[in-house]
Amino acid sequence: MKINRKDFLKQSAASSLLLTSPISFFEKTIPKVDSSKRMRFSFKPYTLELKYVFTVSTLSRTTTPVMLTEIEYDGIVGYGEASMPPYLGESHESATKFLSKVDLSKYENPFELETILSDIDSIEKGNPAAKASVDIALHDLIGKLLNQPWYNIYGVNVKNTPFTVFTIGIDKPEVVRKKMLESTDFKIIKIKLGKDNDKEMIDTVCSMTDKPITADPNQGWTDRNYAIDMINYLKEKGALYVEQPLSKDRFDDLAWLKENSPIPILADEGVQRLSDIPKAKNIYSGINIKLMKSTGMREAYKMILLAKSLGMKVMLGCMTETSCAISAASQLSPLVDWADLDGATLIKNDLFEGAKIINGKVTPSNLPGIGIKKLQKS
Amino acid sequence: MKINRKDFLKQSAASSLLLTSPISFFEKTIPKVDSSKRMRFSFKPYTLELKYVFTVSTLSRTTTPVMLTEIEYDGIVGYGEASMPPYLGESHESATKFLSKVDLSKYENPFELETILSDIDSIEKGNPAAKASVDIALHDLIGKLLNQPWYNIYGVNVKNTPFTVFTIGIDKPEVVRKKMLESTDFKIIKIKLGKDNDKEMIDTVCSMTDKPITADPNQGWTDRNYAIDMINYLKEKGALYVEQPLSKDRFDDLAWLKENSPIPILADEGVQRLSDIPKAKNIYSGINIKLMKSTGMREAYKMILLAKSLGMKVMLGCMTETSCAISAASQLSPLVDWADLDGATLIKNDLFEGAKIINGKVTPSNLPGIGIKKLQKS
Repeated sequence: MKINRKDFLKQSAASSLLLTSPISFFEKTIPKVDSSKRMRFSFKPYTLELKYVFTVSTLSRTTTPVMLTEIEYDGIVGYGEASMPPYLGESHESATKFLSKVDLSKYENPFELETILSDIDSIEKGNPAAKASVDIALHDLIGKLLNQPWYNIYGVNVKNTPFTVFTIGIDKPEVVRKKMLESTDFKIIKIKLGKDNDKEMIDTVCSMTDKPITADPNQGWTDRNYAIDMINYLKEKGALYVEQPLSKDRFDDLAWLKENSPIPILADEGVQRLSDIPKAKNIYSGINIKLMKSTGMREAYKMILLAKSLGMKVMLGCMTETSCAISAASQLSPLVDWADLDGATLIKNDLFEGAKIINGKVTPSNLPGIGIKKLQKS
Repeated sequence: MKINRKDFLKQSAASSLLLTSPISFFEKTIPKVDSSKRMRFSFKPYTLELKYVFTVSTLSRTTTPVMLTEIEYDGIVGYGEASMPPYLGESHESATKFLSKVDLSKYENPFELETILSDIDSIEKGNPAAKASVDIALHDLIGKLLNQPWYNIYGVNVKNTPFTVFTIGIDKPEVVRKKMLESTDFKIIKIKLGKDNDKEMIDTVCSMTDKPITADPNQGWTDRNYAIDMINYLKEKGALYVEQPLSKDRFDDLAWLKENSPIPILADEGVQRLSDIPKAKNIYSGINIKLMKSTGMREAYKMILLAKSLGMKVMLGCMTETSCAISAASQLSPLVDWADLDGATLIKNDLFEGAKIINGKVTPSNLPGIGIKKLQKS
C-alpha cells in the first residue's frame, strides 16, 4: 500500500505536539511592550512660512498649512506631519475633524502597524495627508522603540540614496539662466514645461550644464504628437524621464506615449495609492510616490515594492514640508530610482532637524526612527 | 510676472542648507552597528529523521537532508535552515558548494538585508533552499539585534495567524476515516486528490466533519472539464480553495479554470519566486509561498505584499523542516490568508523549540528574531 507522508505522520504528531495553553516555555519575553501601557495621540495645526511667494495662475500664497502629530508611548515620542497645500483639498479643518476620530489608546501594541493603519484608513475616505501624519508618527515611535533608523529596518543602505533634483520653473531665458547659477550642488536638473516655450526652456538649461535633466509638464501637454516630439527632443538632450506629460484621464494617449517614448513616463497626478498601480502599469513606465498622497510610509513602501515588482520605475516626491515628513521620505529613498525631496529647504520655520542635502542627495540622519530632532517648542 | 515657487525658493535655500561634510550634528548614534565588527557565517549538514516512511510512487524515504546555518555578530547568533527534499534537486552537496561561496565578512552592517541577499542571490542561479538558509539566519540575527520578533517588525498581530490545515492523503475510505480521527484539533482539512477516487475521498472526509475543507490535486487533474466539475463539487462541500489543479504549464486551461471557478485556485508548483507573480495573476487567484522556494523570508514578504496588492490570495506552505524554518515562516503567517505549516511535527529530531500549534494555528513564540531556542548541540 502506498502511504501518504503527511497523513500518517500527523496521526502521531498532532496529539503529541499540540499545546493547549499559551506559549510560556521561554524565560525571555519581548521588551518594551507592556499591555498596561497605551499610546497617546495628539495633534496641532501649524503654518509653514514659505521663503518666497508661491504663485500658480491667479493664486498666490506664502504659507502651507500643516498638522503636527505626536504619539507618546512609555515616555518615547514619535513625530508626524500632514502637509496640505490648499489645491489638494485638505486643510486644518478637515485634518482636525479626521484626526479627532483617531483613537490609539485601544491598541495594546504599538508595533501593530498593519492593524492600526488599516483601521485609520477605514475611518473615512480621502484625507491622505492626515492619515500620513499618523503613519509617520507611528513609524518614528516604532523606530525609536527598536532604536534604529528606518533605513536599517527596511534593510537598505543609505549609500543607495538617489540624487534629488533641482527644479527650474517656467520663465524667461534670463531668469532661467540666473536660477541655473544656484544649481551647482545638484546633480540633476528638473525643468518645468507645459507652456508655450518648452524648447526655449530646455535649450536655455542645456546651454548652461551637461548634467542629466528631467522634465515635468504637470499634465500641461494636450497633443500626443507634440508630446512625443518633445520627449524625443528631451531624450537627445539627456533627459532621464518625464513626469505626467498629459492629463491623467487620457488613458489611451498615455498608453501610446509610453509605448513610443524612448525614456520612462512617470505618473504623478495619475497615481495616488497602492491600488492605482496595477492599472497604471499599462499607461506609465513608473510612478512618483509622495507620502501625502500614499497615506504615509507604510503604503509608500508597499507601492515601491509593487511598482518595482511590476518592472516600473519609482520616484519619491514631496510637498512643502518640515524636516519631519521629508526625513520620513528619506528613509525610503534608498529603495527608489529618483528623488525630489527638497520640501524642507523651501520653508522659513522648520521645527525639526533631520535629513540633509549631502552631495546632491537628501540623506537621512543616523538617529533612530525617521531620524529627526525637534528644534523648538511648537 | 508669474513666479515659480520652487525655483525662487531654491535660489536662497540651496546654498544655506547644503552640508558638505557628513552628518555629525546629533550626539546620539545608532547602536549595535560597529564597523570593526563583522558577521561570521557557518553551516553544517544535518539529516531529519521522519516519524514515518514518506512514500511517493516507487520511492520511499525516511529522512530529509537539511543544512543548518549560523551567522554570528557581536556575540549574537542567528540560526537558519535549508530543507532539501530530494525531488526538488538540492542536496547536502549542492548546498555545501553554494554556501562555501557566501562571504558575509565583507559587509559592515548586518542590517543591509537588501544588498546582502541580492548579492547572495546573484552568486549562482537556483539553490533556493540554500539561499533561504542564509536569509533565515540573517533575519534571526537582525531580529535579535532589534530585540523583537519579526511579527513586530512586520507590524502584524499574532492574533491574525491563520489556521494551519490537517492533510488527508489519498487512500481507501477506511484509512481516511481512521486518519480523520486525528484531526480534531485542526480547523481545516486538506484533502489530497488527483487519483481515481476524488469524490470518494471528498465524501468520506465530509461524512466525518463539518469543518471547511481544501483540496490539493498536485497537478493531478488532466481534463479541465473534469476539474471544474470537481471544483464545483468541492465548493458545495465547503471548500475554501484548491491548490494546483492542473499541470503548471497548462496556461490557457488554468486561466479558463480561474475564470470559471467559484473558489480561489492557488499556484504551488506554478509559482516559485517574486518574478513569477505578475504573470501568474492571469491564471491563478492566489499563490502558495514556501520559504524554500522563495529563497527565504525577504522575498516571501515581498511576494505576500505583491500578491495582495494584485488582489491575489496568499497561502504559506513548508517542507519537512525543523522548528527553525517553520518558526521563520510563522513570523509571516499573520500576513497571509491560509497556512500549511506542520513541517516540524513530522520529524523525530528537531533541534529547536519555536512556533507551536495552538488552537489549530502555528503560532510564533514571543522570542526575538524568528523566535527559536536551540535545544541541543548539533
